[in-house]
This record gives sequence, structure tokens and C-alpha cells, in this order.
Amino acid sequence: MPHDQPRDFAMSCPLPLDDHATVQLAHGGGGRMMRSLVDAVFLKAFEASGDGTAAPARQPPHDSAVVQIEGARLAFTTDTFVVHPLFFPGGDIGRLAVYGTVNDLAMAGARPLFLSAGFVLEEGLPLETLGRVVASMRDAARLSGVRIVTGDTKVVDRGKGDGVFINTAGIGLVPPGVEISPCRVVPGDVILVSGDLGRHGMAVMSVREGLGFEGALESDCEPLAGLVEALLFEGGKAEGGATAPSAKPQAAPSSFAGDIHCLRDLTRGGLAAALCEIAEDARVGIELDEAAIPVSEPVAGACELLGLDPLYVANEGRLVAMVAPAAAAWVLEVLRGHPAAHGPAEIGRVVAGHPGTVEVRGLLGGGRILDLLSGEQMPRIC
Amino acid sequence: MPHDQPRDFAMSCPLPLDDHATVQLAHGGGGRMMRSLVDAVFLKAFEASGDGTAAPARQPPHDSAVVQIEGARLAFTTDTFVVHPLFFPGGDIGRLAVYGTVNDLAMAGARPLFLSAGFVLEEGLPLETLGRVVASMRDAARLSGVRIVTGDTKVVDRGKGDGVFINTAGIGLVPPGVEISPCRVVPGDVILVSGDLGRHGMAVMSVREGLGFEGALESDCEPLAGLVEALLFEGGKAEGGATAPSAKPQAAPSSFAGDIHCLRDLTRGGLAAALCEIAEDARVGIELDEAAIPVSEPVAGACELLGLDPLYVANEGRLVAMVAPAAAAWVLEVLRGHPAAHGPAEIGRVVAGHPGTVEVRGLLGGGRILDLLSGEQMPRIC
Repeated sequence: MPHDQPRDFAMSCPLPLDDHATVQLAHGGGGRMMRSLVDAVFLKAFEASGDGTAAPARQPPHDSAVVQIEGARLAFTTDTFVVHPLFFPGGDIGRLAVYGTVNDLAMAGARPLFLSAGFVLEEGLPLETLGRVVASMRDAARLSGVRIVTGDTKVVDRGKGDGVFINTAGIGLVPPGVEISPCRVVPGDVILVSGDLGRHGMAVMSVREGLGFEGALESDCEPLAGLVEALLFEGGKAEGGATAPSAKPQAAPSSFAGDIHCLRDLTRGGLAAALCEIAEDARVGIELDEAAIPVSEPVAGACELLGLDPLYVANEGRLVAMVAPAAAAWVLEVLRGHPAAHGPAEIGRVVAGHPGTVEVRGLLGGGRILDLLSGEQMPRIC
Repeated sequence: MPHDQPRDFAMSCPLPLDDHATVQLAHGGGGRMMRSLVDAVFLKAFEASGDGTAAPARQPPHDSAVVQIEGARLAFTTDTFVVHPLFFPGGDIGRLAVYGTVNDLAMAGARPLFLSAGFVLEEGLPLETLGRVVASMRDAARLSGVRIVTGDTKVVDRGKGDGVFINTAGIGLVPPGVEISPCRVVPGDVILVSGDLGRHGMAVMSVREGLGFEGALESDCEPLAGLVEALLFEGGKAEGGATAPSAKPQAAPSSFAGDIHCLRDLTRGGLAAALCEIAEDARVGIELDEAAIPVSEPVAGACELLGLDPLYVANEGRLVAMVAPAAAAWVLEVLRGHPAAHGPAEIGRVVAGHPGTVEVRGLLGGGRILDLLSGEQMPRIC
């Protein structure tokens, strides 16, 4: 779609930016306010950057940008991690920082190759803590089959940071023929998730709030590149516990590679945010079957206690897939056989009706609308 | 050189990490302590990351990593910006964030192409401030000929950040035949700088400390990719004020392209840090002629007042070049004709004696040794 080059961003921000003169925690929550901020401030400015010539028609935002260099299609993405606390059941900020970017690359159908790592350290951070975080990144990179090849370190005064923030950017190679994008989602597509929802968010909340669920709740943070490889390429199916993408540069496409239309990993805002964004961007409706959506007992219990909806709670190792109906059974079978999927399920359909809207059908036949929250349930979850 | 995979980074840190149990501001200063932290914690871990096979022989660290993808050589780099204050005479954090990464790519001989932008916003940041920073990034990207194609936004609670921190990572294409690296520096090489030293650091210090130099001192922050293009390619010489790299994908190498051995932009730690690192990494000696090193009157005056050595003060738009003697006059001529150079000068030689050491010859013939400062002169300068 065409877009203008606004002269003054502060002046041209639509609601809800006009409601607030300052940044709110909710602007970082993965909901409506973040989307408005990104649309009104960042996308408008940066789509107009470059050589000053007309920018190409705007693509729906996806987890990675795909750019062409010397004939190769490269996925390029960035993510900063500010999770609090730094260590939580099942993971830590270092592991999140590697897996988060690896997963964003994989959702574009790319093989993750190289990461950068930028650290903002707060004066007074114990070096032992930093050592543990970095060792965790090293192990996570090895497990994901990526190399961390460049880095940067800054230190800010005590009280101007919070221990450590980590940015990772990543480059991956999109193999020929692979097209994974919200643009390809069409009515009729089957919607699947790779496992149960809400573990990461509730594990972090549990330790942050001292709820005592620590034993039962562990983050699901995990690299998904091997799983995507298994969906897209023959022989890409991991054996044993390996989740790293295969080294084969020219593997043949899998039987149903072309039927896998869109992949999205579930992070801030959970399943609801991912599906609302895709429904809006692809101008399709989405209908979910509430009874089919996998949520574990401990997550359901903790959510009930805190008054949270698990559909909005963050994951860090789960993906949602939109696939052509003919491929759905095969995709579910691949997921069931893969060590990075944990209780995969078919949860709904893409429909032509109510474009832009996600509807959940309950057990008793009643429906409710899922919308992007304007704010957020849990700040600093990743 | 071979390297081990330590099991416990905190345990295996050499001095001066053992002197401190926690991160100090000086660990971010571009001096000896930062180098120790990077060597002991980050490089050891991340060189051992990846697929777990033996890592390649270690290359001296440079401003960008150069990686191979599908036959193309890509430069990849990252930098986080935490400068305080956000706006200073001659620039702001947004401009720094774009030019800093563009310049790191250019120093590898790469044409900068794509940037990512990751924001950490502090709750309460005025949106008008964010709008100004983002507009500045847009303009800087346009001037540098790069596109910001992917981004991320996080918000941290009030008092856990400092307005805005920005990470940019960048990808550039290294044209065939270009080899710019500390490995290529040899005794006999002539050392040139592209302009006068210390403007950026003193401009930031001046406004931060309320010294009243604001009128006379402006940051030198500027993209250097056009200048590097002019050195490496025929017809790359910019005309008028344009500093963006040319669009020509296959321009012929310039007359002396092969004689340009190493380029480094001067940031934290200034000229001294850049030359000390190159002398150590290339195992060569460096001799500078103090009288030939360009320092403007206002910078010299401010440095004297504050007891600072301008050779250690940060720039954000200056490079040092090591070139074969036969090319020196031509390089100086190109620099003199380029709008991104400001009073370029030949300042010294690479020598075979005293490898790893930088010596400065004064006006009266006496010499002094430049060493990496253990700490830093100015925290949060970029």
C-alpha cells in the first residue's frame, strides 16, 4: 500500500499515541499500543529511508525482513531482550536472546546462520552473572546451529539500566522456492500450533511474583529452526534430540512445502496477538476451537489465579502454522514426531467471513472475539 | 591462533577481570578493561559457538565480521548506543546509531546496504523526543544510502533505562578483490587520518559538563562510506556534498585499491585505542609525528582545560588508514577532495621495531608511548 513521508512524527501520530505524551510500559507489550507506536513512528520513517526514491509497496510486517543480496534471499531480524528476572525456570536472558532471533529467522523459512550480540551492562553487574549469561548464549547458539560472529559492549551507570539487556540480530538464508508470509494466508487454511501455550509467560510471572509454581512451570524457550526445516525439506526431520537445521545446502523441498503458507512464533501477546496481526494483515477471518487449544494444567491454574487469559500469555518455543487443508494431516504428523514440538494440535481455520477478526468458539457453541489488548498483561516478559 | 573452550568463564577471566567482581563503567570505555572483558568472556565463548566443530583460526577483531553466504562476502556488525545526553551539538543518538554502524561496515571495505534498529525505551520518555530521534535516523539512513528494514521495541520501567538506547546491526557487501584488515598492515605503511581529532568527544563533554564551548565545538559524526568508496573504486569519488556509496555494483577498483591495507574509524578511545589495537593485532610498531596530528583549536583548548589527551578522545566521523607508501600521496589527494574528510593528514608510519607499541615523536624529538587506557576518559560517549 502507498504511504507518505511525514515531516513530523510527533505531530502525525494517530491515536492512541495522542493519548499519551510519553512512552508507557504498555507500548512494549506486543498489543495495540505497540503496534500503533511501530506503525506511526518507526515504519513510517524507516520505509521512507534509503536512497530517497519511492519505497516499494509495503509488505505486511513479519518476524524477519527478507532482502536480496547478489541473488541470494536473506532474512534479517533484530530483537532486544530486557526480561526480568534474568534467570527463570527453564531459561535465562541469554538463551532467550539466541532462540528469539533464531526463531524469527526460521519463521521466514530461513536457515539461521549468523548472529550479532550487543550488550548493555549496568555498572555493578556481577561478572559471574555475565559469565553465566554468556555461557548460556554459547550453548544456545551451538544447539541452534548458528554462530555469534560480531558483538558490542556498552556499560551504563548504576540505576540507568537493569543488570543486562541483550540485542541479537540475525542473518539467515531463505532457500529457493520457500515463500512463508502472511500474504499467502487464504480462507480454508488450517491453523496448527506446535505445543501447549503460555509456559514462558507463566514461568517468568511465577518467579517474579513469588507464586510458588516454580516446580510445575518451566519456560518453553527452545529453538524452532529444526522444526521448520523438517516441515520444508526432505530429510530435514531431526533425529534424536537434535534441533539444529541440517547442513545440507540444497535439500529437496518436502512433499507439502508449498502448502505451508505462514509461520509465526508466539512471543509477546501470545497466540492472540500473533493471530490478530495475521488476520489484519492478510485481511482474513480466523475461527478457533477453544477446546482444541492446548494449555497445560499448571498454566491454566496459574492463569486462573492471576486472572490472565492463556491465549495472551507469551511463549518462546511455540509456533502457529497456517497450511493448506491437504497438508494439515502431514504437518501434524511431522510435528508429532519432532522433539521441538510438545503436544501439537489443529486449533482452527482461516475463513472468508469477518476479515481482520479472530473468533473463538467455546465448548457450548458460544463465540468470543479475540482482539489485541491495548496494553499488556505482563511487562518485560522477553 | 588456537584457543580453548573454557568451562567456566567467570573462573577463567584473566586480569583485570579478577580485580573486579562486578562490571565497572570502565569496562565500556574502549580501553584495556573493555578489551579484557571482550577477550575473556565474549570472544572465548562465541568463537566456540556454532556447530561445535573446531572454530577457524582466530582473526584479529575488526569493526565488522566478514562472512560468506552463497559465494557473496557480507560484512555484518552491531553497535548499541547509550550516549548521554541524547542530543548534543552536531548530532544526536539517532544519527550516531546509523553512522556508527554504516562506518563499521565501510571499514571492512563493504558497501553498507541494510540496517536493523532495536530500541530500549524508558517508561516516561516523551514521544516527541522519540519522534525527533527516529526522524534523525531516517535522514541519516537516507544520507548514507542504507535502508532500515527491520526493528524491535522494548519498554523498561522508569529508572531501569535512560530515555532511549538504540542498537543497530548492519549488513554490507564486500566487493570482489577488496581486502581490508589489520592482517595486511606491514612495516613501511603510511598512516593517514581523514580529519581533525576529538570533536565528538569534546562536543558531548562540553554540553554534559556545561562548559560553555557549545558554540565552538560540534560533533564530527558523519558517514564515511562514500569516502571509502572513493578510495576503493574508480568513479566512487563523491561530487558535491553527496557521501552515499555509489549505486554502481561492479565499479572498477581504483588505481591504488590494493594498497589500502587497513581502515578503522575512530570511536571510543580515539586514535590511540585504534592504533594500539592494530599494533597489537598486526604485531607491528607504529610511530606518529605529533606535530602532524590535526587537532582543532577549540578541541585542544577544551582538552587542556579538562586535562584530557585529544589522542584518546572519541570521534564519530574520522578514519585512520594504513596504506602502502606508493599510494600515500594519491590517498591524501582523494581525502583532500572529499566532502567527508576535514583536514586530512599523513601522521606516521608502521615500523618493524617495537611490535605492539605506538610511539609518538614530539616537537623536540622526544618520544612517548601511547597505551590503551585501562579505564576511560569519558563514559557513555556513544
